Amino acid sequence: MTSPRIYTAALAVIGDEILSGRTQDKNIAQIALWLNLQGIRLREVRVVPDVEDEIVGAVNALRARYDYLFTTGGIGPTHDDITVDAIAKALGVDVVIHPEASALLNRYYESRGGLNEARLRMARVPDGADLIPNRMSGAPGIRHGNIFIMAGVPHITAGMLDALSGTLEGGLPLLSTTVGCWVPESEISELLASTEKAHEGTQIGSYPFFREGKVGANFVIRSTEQELLDRCALALSDGLRAMGREAVAGGI
Amino acid sequence: MTSPRIYTAALAVIGDEILSGRTQDKNIAQIALWLNLQGIRLREVRVVPDVEDEIVGAVNALRARYDYLFTTGGIGPTHDDITVDAIAKALGVDVVIHPEASALLNRYYESRGGLNEARLRMARVPDGADLIPNRMSGAPGIRHGNIFIMAGVPHITAGMLDALSGTLEGGLPLLSTTVGCWVPESEISELLASTEKAHEGTQIGSYPFFREGKVGANFVIRSTEQELLDRCALALSDGLRAMGREAVAGGI
Repeated sequence: MTSPRIYTAALAVIGDEILSGRTQDKNIAQIALWLNLQGIRLREVRVVPDVEDEIVGAVNALRARYDYLFTTGGIGPTHDDITVDAIAKALGVDVVIHPEASALLNRYYESRGGLNEARLRMARVPDGADLIPNRMSGAPGIRHGNIFIMAGVPHITAGMLDALSGTLEGGLPLLSTTVGCWVPESEISELLASTEKAHEGTQIGSYPFFREGKVGANFVIRSTEQELLDRCALALSDGLRAMGREAVAGGI
Repeated sequence: MTSPRIYTAALAVIGDEILSGRTQDKNIAQIALWLNLQGIRLREVRVVPDVEDEIVGAVNALRARYDYLFTTGGIGPTHDDITVDAIAKALGVDVVIHPEASALLNRYYESRGGLNEARLRMARVPDGADLIPNRMSGAPGIRHGNIFIMAGVPHITAGMLDALSGTLEGGLPLLSTTVGCWVPESEISELLASTEKAHEGTQIGSYPFFREGKVGANFVIRSTEQELLDRCALALSDGLRAMGREAVAGGI
């Protein structure tokens, strides 16, 4: 049996507001969860400032290395929105006005003061791009080859992801199951390692917590095969019980 | 007048739990805010999986390029905690048991079942490292040259940052002030660009929002000089008023 192909993605988060700590990023988790449903694994994230060379560098490194590259941020109408220009530069193509985007924006702003120069900026795309529908506001997202250019505002990005659902080629989704236990992870690290080793094709992550005055941990088992996942979870639960600990299916 | 030196940092977030979307990262914003208070600017973040070669690659790229490199995650007692080994590999040094760390852990676990092999893993450091105090739990953080190896759990990282406060050489902190306005950012993008241009040494970020059924934006002005910041904020507020818009000092 050959291994099924694994599809990979990277995310470039573009924005001084994340690097200054002003804004708590929510797109990493949102895009990671969505990608997993598409059978695509998020393998790397880079957060870069609103500086053209930094964006170009990250985009070129990531688009070459992964099947898909998503970007968030920097596609609005103001002077600090330079993502489209930077990605066009990375691709070596011109920035052009996309006629469909300009028509969309025209309709959207008809009742909102009309299309001005700043608003028309949001119809600019790297030459050769397609649009990604945005049902939340006027400005669309942009697809160019394996690059998906999304908004920075999380609920707008969510709408763009919805529009893309089921359209990207992916592989088997990574399934996961969680076993929780009120135990310090440092007491059962051997059990975790041996259980993972005995179930090739699984990974077990250990996530400790401190709650209600007690320490515990959730053990997240990941695999593309449900049956393997179940067997591994059972073995881990049995192992915990053999050490006198109660295993909580689904996590704590 | 020569420009004052700008001190820079990068952050490598190490952990499959962030890339899978299971855990919402909180360390980026926390470390960004703390760094700014130290007069250090966070310039880049990379999120990488629990895979040795990926950690080595990110660490070597980032430690060379920025004054400081912080890492979070992967320093616990279980098999998936490989940060210390990966960083030692990146540095080309051995992993050794730090005697002070092993003494700390010994004391901490005296009343908690004793030090076992897994717990002793948390005393392992890249050869030549110093410890970063951790008042929250037994395992210390680690400093090696310009690399600061921190916990993944945010409140433990917070304690380590506290312990480091005031010990890193920094420059002038980046100050900021916010002007808010109930205006679509696309109506005043020219004003933003011209105001920034007229105040060299400032950057203006535009952060739109949709609230109470209305659109608005906060304009965050950043500079290392308070007087310049104040002048720029005043000019922007005057400009907004000249367009018939009310400027809200401090943001909306």
